[in-house]
Amino acid sequence: MEAIQDTSPASSTRVEGERMMLLAEELFPICRSITGNGVRQTLEILKRHIPLDVHEVPTGTPVFDWKVPQEWNIRGAYIATAKGARVVDFAAHNLHVVQYSRAIDAVVTIEELRKHLHSMPEQPDWIPYRTAYYSETWGFCLTQRQLESLREPTYRVVIDSSLENGCLSYGEYVVAGQTNETVLLSCHICHPSLANDNLSGIVVATMLAQRIRDMRPRYTYRFLFIPGTIGSLTWLARNEAETVQVRFGLVLSCLGDAGGMTYKQSRRGNAKIDRIVAHVLRYHATPHRITPFVPYGYDERQFCSPGFNLPVGCLMRTPNGQYPEYHSSGDNISLLRAESLVHSLEILERIVAVIEGDSVYRSLNSKGEPQLGRRGLYAPLGGRQAAGEQQMAMLWVLNLADGENSLLDVAERSGLDFSLIRSAADALADAELLELVA
Amino acid sequence: MEAIQDTSPASSTRVEGERMMLLAEELFPICRSITGNGVRQTLEILKRHIPLDVHEVPTGTPVFDWKVPQEWNIRGAYIATAKGARVVDFAAHNLHVVQYSRAIDAVVTIEELRKHLHSMPEQPDWIPYRTAYYSETWGFCLTQRQLESLREPTYRVVIDSSLENGCLSYGEYVVAGQTNETVLLSCHICHPSLANDNLSGIVVATMLAQRIRDMRPRYTYRFLFIPGTIGSLTWLARNEAETVQVRFGLVLSCLGDAGGMTYKQSRRGNAKIDRIVAHVLRYHATPHRITPFVPYGYDERQFCSPGFNLPVGCLMRTPNGQYPEYHSSGDNISLLRAESLVHSLEILERIVAVIEGDSVYRSLNSKGEPQLGRRGLYAPLGGRQAAGEQQMAMLWVLNLADGENSLLDVAERSGLDFSLIRSAADALADAELLELVA
Amino acid sequence: MEAIQDTSPASSTRVEGERMMLLAEELFPICRSITGNGVRQTLEILKRHIPLDVHEVPTGTPVFDWKVPQEWNIRGAYIATAKGARVVDFAAHNLHVVQYSRAIDAVVTIEELRKHLHSMPEQPDWIPYRTAYYSETWGFCLTQRQLESLREPTYRVVIDSSLENGCLSYGEYVVAGQTNETVLLSCHICHPSLANDNLSGIVVATMLAQRIRDMRPRYTYRFLFIPGTIGSLTWLARNEAETVQVRFGLVLSCLGDAGGMTYKQSRRGNAKIDRIVAHVLRYHATPHRITPFVPYGYDERQFCSPGFNLPVGCLMRTPNGQYPEYHSSGDNISLLRAESLVHSLEILERIVAVIEGDSVYRSLNSKGEPQLGRRGLYAPLGGRQAAGEQQMAMLWVLNLADGENSLLDVAERSGLDFSLIRSAADALADAELLELVA
Repeated sequence: MEAIQDTSPASSTRVEGERMMLLAEELFPICRSITGNGVRQTLEILKRHIPLDVHEVPTGTPVFDWKVPQEWNIRGAYIATAKGARVVDFAAHNLHVVQYSRAIDAVVTIEELRKHLHSMPEQPDWIPYRTAYYSETWGFCLTQRQLESLREPTYRVVIDSSLENGCLSYGEYVVAGQTNETVLLSCHICHPSLANDNLSGIVVATMLAQRIRDMRPRYTYRFLFIPGTIGSLTWLARNEAETVQVRFGLVLSCLGDAGGMTYKQSRRGNAKIDRIVAHVLRYHATPHRITPFVPYGYDERQFCSPGFNLPVGCLMRTPNGQYPEYHSSGDNISLLRAESLVHSLEILERIVAVIEGDSVYRSLNSKGEPQLGRRGLYAPLGGRQAAGEQQMAMLWVLNLADGENSLLDVAERSGLDFSLIRSAADALADAELLELVA
Repeated sequence: MEAIQDTSPASSTRVEGERMMLLAEELFPICRSITGNGVRQTLEILKRHIPLDVHEVPTGTPVFDWKVPQEWNIRGAYIATAKGARVVDFAAHNLHVVQYSRAIDAVVTIEELRKHLHSMPEQPDWIPYRTAYYSETWGFCLTQRQLESLREPTYRVVIDSSLENGCLSYGEYVVAGQTNETVLLSCHICHPSLANDNLSGIVVATMLAQRIRDMRPRYTYRFLFIPGTIGSLTWLARNEAETVQVRFGLVLSCLGDAGGMTYKQSRRGNAKIDRIVAHVLRYHATPHRITPFVPYGYDERQFCSPGFNLPVGCLMRTPNGQYPEYHSSGDNISLLRAESLVHSLEILERIVAVIEGDSVYRSLNSKGEPQLGRRGLYAPLGGRQAAGEQQMAMLWVLNLADGENSLLDVAERSGLDFSLIRSAADALADAELLELVA
Repeated sequence: MEAIQDTSPASSTRVEGERMMLLAEELFPICRSITGNGVRQTLEILKRHIPLDVHEVPTGTPVFDWKVPQEWNIRGAYIATAKGARVVDFAAHNLHVVQYSRAIDAVVTIEELRKHLHSMPEQPDWIPYRTAYYSETWGFCLTQRQLESLREPTYRVVIDSSLENGCLSYGEYVVAGQTNETVLLSCHICHPSLANDNLSGIVVATMLAQRIRDMRPRYTYRFLFIPGTIGSLTWLARNEAETVQVRFGLVLSCLGDAGGMTYKQSRRGNAKIDRIVAHVLRYHATPHRITPFVPYGYDERQFCSPGFNLPVGCLMRTPNGQYPEYHSSGDNISLLRAESLVHSLEILERIVAVIEGDSVYRSLNSKGEPQLGRRGLYAPLGGRQAAGEQQMAMLWVLNLADGENSLLDVAERSGLDFSLIRSAADALADAELLELVA
């Protein structure tokens, strides 16, 4: 692998943050769902950044216990008074229509209408995000204030949507490595105008894919841009043979808010990716949390289903459901912070650096310590209080270089950051004190 | 198994508590010991509630390193002044005579008498409980105040007891299950008028046996009503072949006081019964304690001896030796609380529900999640903050239904009560999403 | 083994402490290094106490990745003013010369001189200890106050040292046991006038060796008195075949200061020596600390190198680098406390008692408890609150005497001191209730 730079000059960091914010802003207005033109439009924009393969899977295709659903598209929708005043309008916000609402054009009583309205009484200015993918119904989402202002006896409701045979669309980008062993990186692209929940993951994944593309990686990297649940199921069903190659995986979401990092472990709990992320967060993300796997959340639910049980965790800042703006119009561009996106990307690059750089060595002088001094690797003057971190890193690598411990084992046991351990191993290998085992 | 009701109406709970208190009150005045008519009388009373088999094992029968001792019976005993005033009288309290005291009728000096008297200086109004099963001696127990009032130079001491060849008596009740694999439930019946220590265990075990009798259990349940130590040794010696069938076991004692539950683990420490009791107490007993095995206490000492090492723990409220009234006349009916007896019984029923209901399933759709929505098992409207407990229980069962995890594993990992997990598995099995593995 | 006395009368303790202090005082003025006459002189003195074998290994002998260095000896050294006033003089303190300084006799400018001077600005009255074993240079160590008083433009520097082919000297004392399985006890003898760091280990090891000599030990004990690093490497290289016999090992250092005990675990972390020392410290050293292995410190670095990975930990009071006087003239006799030396010795004797006394037994009555009462091993009167510690020790030994648990396992699980468990096992073995398995 080529080295990933540990630190970027402040200016390039600023540029990076701005690029990610710009991409998020460009994607924000699009009305995405689990199928439809919003997804295609999103993937087209991403193709300007990375050479995505876009896959179209026809309605009705069986995927395990499911079928690819009909494609949903929407052109407009509103609730209007008898006089024609539009009190709720899809043109104003994508969230105003419950996703997968069937078409309707009718005058209904306020009582009937209320059964189809969704608001957030505890957040009176936000529109909630609601879906009804697999049940034939219709509905509007609106602010609590809008709801309370509805006082007429009847309203006209119009939803100009279509639910027809079509395709489910998803994007995939594979960076081939020196081996078929694979790192899976997945984000969902099915949420309409929601910023932290889906756009942050999309923009960080896109930037990371650019970085990986510019390396000659040891592992093969597979980036998925897919609709939640049905998208991961579809990818899994079409790529069962590839799944056995997955050695490491992360679902990416909620990576742009101001909160600390959260890592949700894989179902295995002790997979190498679990150890790696915990290690990187320990040194580079304060504060952070490690939470155990639960079968709820994002597509790790599918990747970690018992028939696959892939080593896939989920990297987030503030997790789904744990910030007030979650699944509402409050989760908009203003919730994103460029520095959070940059930091999330940096954490991912560090994770990649461990995945790529973790190796097993055997000391070529395993009996006693080798004489580092005559190789210029040890301070010439002895007697001081304690050894420095770099000296300690070298001693740890040598002491554990028994052909069984990997450098990650060394980093964990020594309490030193992996990058220090990796550098020490490089210096020792250069001095022909180590041989590579795996 | 037939379902055990999770909650009983308050009135039936009250009736249950009253029945247990009445039985305890009926048994209290009997002078039990490790042999003798008091034990037989006790077993006769229990036979009115459950069809006990009463076993009589002759004196001298070898049981491992021991022999069944001679049978001890006592008709009366007292300490009297020269004028014939009885200052201590067995007729007033069973505890006044050291158990297994030999017969005596003599006038002794106060100095000589004092060597045979036992009191509790720190609890001047209580009579201690003392035994001398395997050493030929005699003695009286009395309150500290009684002791201090003895001022005459000589006293007449009379103990009208007999120690003769006879039998050791114990009761056993077996509820046959669908398999010979056995749940062992044991309580001691050798203490004279002591309420929490022995009667509470006896009455709760009796009620539990009635409940099990009314089920068609998967496991065979074996209830033992035995004298401590020599009784369990005798049962073990006569039933060595049965012991290999024991999968779960509990010694029951001290189940009626006002304290929280205590579970003392089996010698193994990680036996399934240890996990089950810990799980049930976590959700249904606040406060409670789990304590590690120690080779002191009740008959778990024998069941967990190295030659058997059975998975038998001990369920108590306040443990032996840890309440001031322990082994004294303070441990009388007033120490028992009907609601504690009812709660102890409820905990045992919940433990039985886990023993009976713990199974291993395999998901019939292990690749990805099955589509619960079209089976009516998933909320039709998506997007809300979090899933409810029942939803989570279903997702956990499916996620861990790999043919290796049992429902107890699922309950432990999910942090959800076993009863929720069991219900979720039932719903999923009804929807033909699971197959039973074991 | 013969019993090691648990407690010594106060007077013998005082005598012991005085003997160790006297030996330390005798050794203090000698200028030791990793080679040279100071080491030989030290070993000669120790031979008056224990029958050490002194080994002389010629310069140039290859030891793994190293070679035995030339022998360094020094006769005198000073820094003098132009007028001949000696402002720094080796005759005043051994630490004034950087170890392995080459010979020099020159007038140098103050600027040039300063490059060769070492002081401790934070401890202005102490002379630091510095070494330059494997680089050809020269230097003086002095107090910060001395350094600041150097105001002349030029000084004469004289070091009358020699670095020539010769030998590396070390001492070894083997107490043969009933088996070749070995306990390795090692201390370094390469520090000049430093008291806690090297002399305390030397005197405690010497006394312990006397004690072991007077036993008929089960294990073979091998005491090493060696120069740090190159000494242990040399011993390892010359005794590779013996190293496979090492079952337990301790490096001894810093055993005389007023601090609590510290045990640094072996590289394995779970070796039996690690468990034994933790057990002994738990009951006999308050406060104490257990710290994990790190590949820095004393000769455990070499013994625990991956090609050997011996079960060798390091026993100290305040560890290297963690007391202000470390590696300076502050680490002198006044830092030593007789009672600390005595306590360190006592701890080592207790460790030896566990090493020697740890055995595996099988109960000859494993089904149920044996009847201790008729063997006089159980209190005849029953019913009291709780069993005493000795009773509990017996019950624990019996309960765990399944032919797999060792007495150390029993001690750890029971929470009772090993000496109690060992006594209980002796009593039970005397009563023919146990058979020795291993």
